[in-house]
Amino acid sequence: MSRETDDLTAVAEPLEDEDLEDLALGEDYALNAEFVSDVADALDRGDAERLRELLSALHPADVADLMGFLSADAREELIPHLDPETLAEILSELDTEIREEVLEHVPSATLAKAIGEMESDDAADVVDDLEDDKRAEVMAAMPEVERAAIETTLSYGDETAGRLMQREVVAAPQFWTVGQAIDHFRKESEELPELFFDVYVVDPAYKPVGAVPVSLLLRSGRQTPLAQIMEPVNEITVDLDQEEVAYIFDKYHLISAPVVDGAGRLVGQITVDDIVGVIQEETEEDILALAGVSDAGRDAGMLGIVRSRLPWLLINLGTEALAVTVIGAFQAEIAKLVALAILMPIVSSVGGNAGTQALTVAVRAIAAKELNAHNAMRIIGRELSVGLFNGGAVGGMLGLGAYVWWHDLRLAIAVGLAVLANMFVAAIGGVVAPIVLDRLGRDPAAPSPIVVTFMTDFFGFLALLGIAALILL
Amino acid sequence: MSRETDDLTAVAEPLEDEDLEDLALGEDYALNAEFVSDVADALDRGDAERLRELLSALHPADVADLMGFLSADAREELIPHLDPETLAEILSELDTEIREEVLEHVPSATLAKAIGEMESDDAADVVDDLEDDKRAEVMAAMPEVERAAIETTLSYGDETAGRLMQREVVAAPQFWTVGQAIDHFRKESEELPELFFDVYVVDPAYKPVGAVPVSLLLRSGRQTPLAQIMEPVNEITVDLDQEEVAYIFDKYHLISAPVVDGAGRLVGQITVDDIVGVIQEETEEDILALAGVSDAGRDAGMLGIVRSRLPWLLINLGTEALAVTVIGAFQAEIAKLVALAILMPIVSSVGGNAGTQALTVAVRAIAAKELNAHNAMRIIGRELSVGLFNGGAVGGMLGLGAYVWWHDLRLAIAVGLAVLANMFVAAIGGVVAPIVLDRLGRDPAAPSPIVVTFMTDFFGFLALLGIAALILL
Repeated sequence: MSRETDDLTAVAEPLEDEDLEDLALGEDYALNAEFVSDVADALDRGDAERLRELLSALHPADVADLMGFLSADAREELIPHLDPETLAEILSELDTEIREEVLEHVPSATLAKAIGEMESDDAADVVDDLEDDKRAEVMAAMPEVERAAIETTLSYGDETAGRLMQREVVAAPQFWTVGQAIDHFRKESEELPELFFDVYVVDPAYKPVGAVPVSLLLRSGRQTPLAQIMEPVNEITVDLDQEEVAYIFDKYHLISAPVVDGAGRLVGQITVDDIVGVIQEETEEDILALAGVSDAGRDAGMLGIVRSRLPWLLINLGTEALAVTVIGAFQAEIAKLVALAILMPIVSSVGGNAGTQALTVAVRAIAAKELNAHNAMRIIGRELSVGLFNGGAVGGMLGLGAYVWWHDLRLAIAVGLAVLANMFVAAIGGVVAPIVLDRLGRDPAAPSPIVVTFMTDFFGFLALLGIAALILL
Repeated sequence: MSRETDDLTAVAEPLEDEDLEDLALGEDYALNAEFVSDVADALDRGDAERLRELLSALHPADVADLMGFLSADAREELIPHLDPETLAEILSELDTEIREEVLEHVPSATLAKAIGEMESDDAADVVDDLEDDKRAEVMAAMPEVERAAIETTLSYGDETAGRLMQREVVAAPQFWTVGQAIDHFRKESEELPELFFDVYVVDPAYKPVGAVPVSLLLRSGRQTPLAQIMEPVNEITVDLDQEEVAYIFDKYHLISAPVVDGAGRLVGQITVDDIVGVIQEETEEDILALAGVSDAGRDAGMLGIVRSRLPWLLINLGTEALAVTVIGAFQAEIAKLVALAILMPIVSSVGGNAGTQALTVAVRAIAAKELNAHNAMRIIGRELSVGLFNGGAVGGMLGLGAYVWWHDLRLAIAVGLAVLANMFVAAIGGVVAPIVLDRLGRDPAAPSPIVVTFMTDFFGFLALLGIAALILL
């Protein structure tokens, strides 16, 4: 957890700095394109003084953002202009790929020092991004205690509570009073995390038995025993998946929660600002998976992007090739009535769209844990009704259009029925595919679009051409 | 802001309650389907005692979740079994449509009392959901001060900082010391919000000049002046859009921020747990918009869902009808070479998928403010290269397949070139459409898929049939 309000919006600053801030940030706190271009120009000219001036207006989070806007070359030129302290502050703000790139340019000794100043979760993230050689160097240059802490954090699985938590935590024994706690915090001020929101009350085995929000501590009388004002806690075990952690925080509106090991002992805490990042990350994964993309990162190169997209395009090519075999089986019919070739793509397209709609809604409901065995049948039934209704509406429109265009009632009926049937199939595929994948313990977002696209293409062609062959030719 | 850890996970509870909790919630804190079915059964039997027992195991957030799983009928039956206190607690947890339904069944006097106990942002949300008649009744039954506060909150635009903020805020004058502040908070304990994270330091005009995190207050010496330890604040104005507020919280890792009126005076605060909801809401909007759905709500009926999907399906029908006019212009060619009818859908489909990929990435980059005038040309250039590369790969594969199948080199070349050209067009459409819409001040997520689908269908047909007409027939 790190909250670093900097001098960015200090209210009582000299005017000159405010002007520079206005240049740097828009009213929406996003970096202005002109400012980024100014930095790029100064880098081109090698104008170190102007660079220092421009960068001085920025919060570390904005410097990290700036790095994302610059080209890889410009970024590399910028690194030497950042003083080691700023560098340390921005490391935890950078996107992974950009961070990996930046880390290559920072000496191990500087890194070891910078990492020592970070909170344990941020420190472990940075160490994790180092290449093997450099990681060994950096770890060797760190004090034993910090090294052990980072090694422990890294021993937890990726995307678990253990990796997300900070080991810095404020705990107090059950028998303390408010006054004892406050006196202790004043005396040990140096040892405490920079910011904390809850004091965890622990039993002699260091198991959390409750939590006292700091604001409650502040307004309670000094003689009040902690045990009297403490609130129950939602414990989180180190191996819980970060998506589950986010669900718990969101559901119960938590600000922080204690993390316990297998034996139930307090080993760290997770704070809500880390959860904001997790929620962004997990929803982003779903959005991209639904579009058939994996995350290539903010400043991925062309090849990185190709890698994140080509596999799905090739799979799509394969399923599409399979779907059009249906058309191959009806070549004679198409040659006789080319109107079928015109209507075919419409039938498969509206089916595909209806399937995507049902699918997206189902995937989101599963992610929000709003779909379980109790209401699954009701939701499937509702989707099928919607499929029939929308299929009737769209099929009717298209049938009418076909009749007006070709004056062929049987063709109009064929295409109308085909749309109706295909949108029913789309509804089934859209809601059943993600539910089944979820039951099988798979991610419902990524493979579902493949299944649904194939179903609506294959069946769309089959419905139109099959019905046409039966009633028309 | 409301954080209500309840007796849900109390560590030292009687065993019986723990058993009931295990029945209610899975390890992931989601409601078990069996538990929901038990509740539904008890409702069917009218077994009030069993219901009370089952509900006693639940946190208000879980009761709200339970309501979402139940059918509308079961929900209506459940309401009378909830005591007014629980009802008050779950009101702010319910989804809007379900809340509107529930509110119809609660007497105005009970509602007025319940709303009085909520924080101002939650209270305003509930009042906003009431039907006109009932709203007038409820407001009339409330004390003048509370009514005025709710009216002020409701006077701010939807989805602005003013609507999101709570008016309850802890402020201290610049000249106070830590000790004076703590003594004051102890004495006025009753007047303070239930939880708070920052004390805002204000000048005589009530403008915030800094903030002292509560944990810092706790560990600083009593003689320390607040002005000495206060940190700069990121002020938020009442009319800022909630999406912008979420961006600021996320970027600077804020826990709370002061909200000021047009004159810069402190009028409330926003806390990070409200932001978690906003982020969920805004990303959800994007996901659904990209799939051509509007949010029908967790428990929307069939007609609600139809309304949220049919418009986009009809628009898609229209654009698709326009796109196939291209096929109509090449009927003679298709009749001569039916292989074209088989290949056509493949060319438009892979183009559509490539366009969706580029589009989704661009929409997300715009939402994250990672795309501006400085890097737009670079990102467009990168997308075009990716389009050409992927187009070459997929076009090559398809051309090869066509050659193996039909032993027709010119057909293979035609389809390969058509894919290459269409994927280049898809890349242009996918990245340019959202950028242009954003520049025009429109939401880039909703209309972009329509544009891109039309482009890749129209151009996919045109490229294949046009090239085929030129080199084949």
